[in-house]
Amino acid sequence: MSVMSNLTRFCSSSTDILFPSFTFFLLKITNYFFTYPKIPPPAMGVILAINAGSSSVKISVYLADKGTAPRQIAEAQVNGLTAPPAQLKYSRGGESVIKDQNVDTAVNSQDDAFALLLKTLVDDAELKEISSKSDVAIACHRIVHGGDYGSSQVITPDTYHHLEALSDLAPLHNGAALTIVDSCMKQLPDATNVACFDSQFHSTIPPHISTYPIDQTIAKKNRLRKYGFHGISYAFISRSVADFLGKSRDQLNIIALHLGSGASACAIRNGKSWDTSMGLTPLAGLPGATRSGSVDPSLVFHYASDVGKLSPASTEKLHISTAEEILNKESGWKSLTGTTNFGIIAASDEPQHRLAFDLFVDRICGFVGSYYVSLKGDVDAIVFAGGIGERSARLRSAVVEQAGCLGFAIDEGLNNAEGAGDETVRELSNKDSKHKVLVCQTDEQFEMARACTEMEALW
Amino acid sequence: MSVMSNLTRFCSSSTDILFPSFTFFLLKITNYFFTYPKIPPPAMGVILAINAGSSSVKISVYLADKGTAPRQIAEAQVNGLTAPPAQLKYSRGGESVIKDQNVDTAVNSQDDAFALLLKTLVDDAELKEISSKSDVAIACHRIVHGGDYGSSQVITPDTYHHLEALSDLAPLHNGAALTIVDSCMKQLPDATNVACFDSQFHSTIPPHISTYPIDQTIAKKNRLRKYGFHGISYAFISRSVADFLGKSRDQLNIIALHLGSGASACAIRNGKSWDTSMGLTPLAGLPGATRSGSVDPSLVFHYASDVGKLSPASTEKLHISTAEEILNKESGWKSLTGTTNFGIIAASDEPQHRLAFDLFVDRICGFVGSYYVSLKGDVDAIVFAGGIGERSARLRSAVVEQAGCLGFAIDEGLNNAEGAGDETVRELSNKDSKHKVLVCQTDEQFEMARACTEMEALW
Repeated sequence: MSVMSNLTRFCSSSTDILFPSFTFFLLKITNYFFTYPKIPPPAMGVILAINAGSSSVKISVYLADKGTAPRQIAEAQVNGLTAPPAQLKYSRGGESVIKDQNVDTAVNSQDDAFALLLKTLVDDAELKEISSKSDVAIACHRIVHGGDYGSSQVITPDTYHHLEALSDLAPLHNGAALTIVDSCMKQLPDATNVACFDSQFHSTIPPHISTYPIDQTIAKKNRLRKYGFHGISYAFISRSVADFLGKSRDQLNIIALHLGSGASACAIRNGKSWDTSMGLTPLAGLPGATRSGSVDPSLVFHYASDVGKLSPASTEKLHISTAEEILNKESGWKSLTGTTNFGIIAASDEPQHRLAFDLFVDRICGFVGSYYVSLKGDVDAIVFAGGIGERSARLRSAVVEQAGCLGFAIDEGLNNAEGAGDETVRELSNKDSKHKVLVCQTDEQFEMARACTEMEALW
Repeated sequence: MSVMSNLTRFCSSSTDILFPSFTFFLLKITNYFFTYPKIPPPAMGVILAINAGSSSVKISVYLADKGTAPRQIAEAQVNGLTAPPAQLKYSRGGESVIKDQNVDTAVNSQDDAFALLLKTLVDDAELKEISSKSDVAIACHRIVHGGDYGSSQVITPDTYHHLEALSDLAPLHNGAALTIVDSCMKQLPDATNVACFDSQFHSTIPPHISTYPIDQTIAKKNRLRKYGFHGISYAFISRSVADFLGKSRDQLNIIALHLGSGASACAIRNGKSWDTSMGLTPLAGLPGATRSGSVDPSLVFHYASDVGKLSPASTEKLHISTAEEILNKESGWKSLTGTTNFGIIAASDEPQHRLAFDLFVDRICGFVGSYYVSLKGDVDAIVFAGGIGERSARLRSAVVEQAGCLGFAIDEGLNNAEGAGDETVRELSNKDSKHKVLVCQTDEQFEMARACTEMEALW
C-alpha cells in the first residue's frame, strides 16, 4: 500500500472535502511525509489516461507491460458539461457501447463526470480488466502548464503544491485537470497519479528563444518565459514520424503543426523542441476557435476599458483578467465567422469564412517560414496533426502551396484520399517535394500512457 | 496668403494659447473654413522636414523644385530634451557649424527646441535661402500613427482634428509630433504644414494579414488592426533599391529590415507593403532598445498587478496604461543588458550581451523566413537599414548566415568594408547568393521632403 494510497484513501473518506481544506490538510501532513523515501512501484496493469477540458472529461483505458506499447482496451467520454444535459459515450475494444447518451443533469462538474466515467468502466461486465476501482494502477492526467517540469511527475504532496502554484500562471487552463486529480485521489485510492504536462516537451527550447526581453528580475521572480504547449502531442508526433521515416529520433528535424480548436506550431530539432508558437500561456502564436493568438500586446488596452480588472471567472485564489478572458474565449475564428467549426469555414466561400481561412493559412505559413530558417533548412518534413490538420485537405493544400518556395509539394490525390484509417502517419508529398509532407493522427492519451510505461519510478 | 497661414498667424498672435483652447478655437471656426475650396499652392522653395521624438527634435532643410529631388542645404538638431542641458548641433552644406553645444536649460520642451532650431537657421547669415521665417514654404512632419490615411496630408483644421483623435491609438508616439505641428502653426504662419505618416506606406496590407481575429464590431469601432510603422523609411528603401537594381518599383519584391532602437521588418511586394512586423502600435514585432516587441498578450497581467491602470505619463485626454509604458519603455535589450546601445552589445561576448544579440537575430530571422514564404520566394533582396542595420556588420552577418538556407550569402569583405559613404545602396552578397543582400542608408527626412515635391496640391 503506497503512501499516496493511504493519503488519498484518507481524503476520500469524506466526499465533502473541498479544495482549500484538502490543501490545508496536505500542508499539515507534509512534515510527516518528508521522511518517506520513495513511492513503491504499484503493480502495472491498467492505466487510465485522463484529459479534462472545461466542458468535457475523457478517459482512455490501456493495458501496459514494461517495455511494450500500451494497448487501448476502452474509451469513455462525457461532453457538454457547460451545456447540460451532458452526453456520455463509451467504446470497448474499438466497438461503440454507449453512443452520445444524455446523462442526468446532476452531472455538471468534472468531478461528477469522472465519477460517471469510472462507474461506466467498473459496471461493464465485459471489461474484465476493471472489475473494481482498485484494478486501476495508474491514473495519468494531462495538465496544460507544467512550469519548469521537464518530465512527467508522480503526484506527491510536494508535486501537488507545485501544481497549485502553477495554476497562477495558467488560471484558465490548469483548473479542470487539477479538479480531476483531486477527484482521482479520492475515488481511486489505490492508483498512482501521474501528471503529464503539455509544456514539458518544450523544456529544451534554448534561452535566446524562450526569453522575453523584459525586466529580468521580474521575469525570473514571476517565471515569465516561453513555455509552449501541445507538447504531449508533439512527443507523439516526433516518435511516430521518426518511426515512419526510419530515422533515429535524435536525428529528426521537422516542422510540426498541431492544428485544432487550439493551434500551435513547433520546430523540432534532433527530436527535441527548438521553438514553438505558444508562449507563457497558450494564448500566443496561432489563432484558435476562440483564441486570438498573437496580437499587439497593446491591443487589449484599446479594446475595452478596465481590461486589467478581474473577470467573473476569477476565484479567490486564481486571478483572471478580463483581457485574458476576451482574448482566450471571445476571439479566434468564432469572432470572425460566428462558428468554432473550422470544417464549415474551410468548406465555404463566404467572404467572412474566406477571411478566417486565409488569415489562418497566413499565420501558419508565417511559422513554417520562421521555423524553416530556425532549423537552417535541415527539415525532414512538415507534419500536419490535430483535428484540423488531420481532416482539412483544403487547409493542408493551401499551406503547402504557399510554402512551395521552401521545397514542399503535395500530391492532391493523396491529400484528398481518406487514408486506410489505421496508419498513424501518412505521406502526402509528391515526387518533386524536397521535404516530405506528412499527416499524423496524433494521440495524446496514448502518449501519456506510453510515458508512464517508461517512468522507472513506476516499475 | 493661404487659409492655413491666416489661421496659424492668428493662433501665433498669442504664445499662451494652449492645446485644449487651440482645439476649441479650431472647433469654433470649422464652419467658417467649411466653405473654403482648396489651399492655394504656395511658392515652392524651402522645405523643412521635421522629426520630433520624445527627447529630440531634428530639422532637415531642403530646396526643392517640382520634378527634381530635394537638395539638402542644412540640418539642425536638438538632443537630450529629457536629460538637460539639451545639446544643439547644426550643419550647413554638409559642413558642421555647431557641434553638440549645450543650450540654455530653459530649452526643455519640443516647443522650445523647435524655436531654437528655427532661430539657428534664420540667424545664420550664410544660409541665404532662409533670411526670415517666411522663407519656409513647407514644414513636413513625421507623425507615427496615421490611422487610415494612405498618403501624406496637408494639415487643415479637419486633418488636425483627425490627428488629435488618432493620438488615442498612439498616445506614446504621436504626442511629440503634434506639439511641433502646433509650434509650427504659430511660428511659421506662412508655411504649409504637411503630415507624413509612418503608417501610410502600409495601407496596402491585405485584410487577411492586417485583421486581428477579435470581435469585429469592436475592432471596427475602435479601429483595431495592424497598421505598421517605419513606412517613411520603407518608402525610401523601396525607391532606392528599385533604382539600384534597375527595376521598376512596381516589380520590386524585397524583405526590408529597419533596425534601430525601434526595429521592424517589412515584406514589400510589387513595391508595396504586403506585411510588416509592427501592429496596431509600434510595440508588436521585433524588440527594440526599450521595447519588448511581441510577447504573449497575457504576459503583462503576470508582470505586475494593476497593469491596466493609467501610467503617470497619461494626461486628461490621453490614456496610457502602465503595461504599455512598461513594454515600450522598460523592456527591450536595455532590460537584458543595461544598455540601449546595440553597438556595445554586438561587440561584446559577455553572456547577457550574447543573449540579447542572439535573441535579436532569432526574432529578425523569424520574420525573414515568414516573409520569404509570404512572398512565395520571389525575393529580389534582403535589405538592411536603420542605425543597427547600416552599422552592425556582425548582426548582418549573423542574420544572413542563419537565413542561408533561403539562398542568401554574404561577402564578408564587402560586409566589413566601410563603403564610400556616399552610396545610398550597397551590395553585400557574394556570387553564390541566389538573392541579393543589400544595405541601404535610409533617409526619412529626405523621403518626407520628396513626398512633398510630389503632392499635386502643393504646386
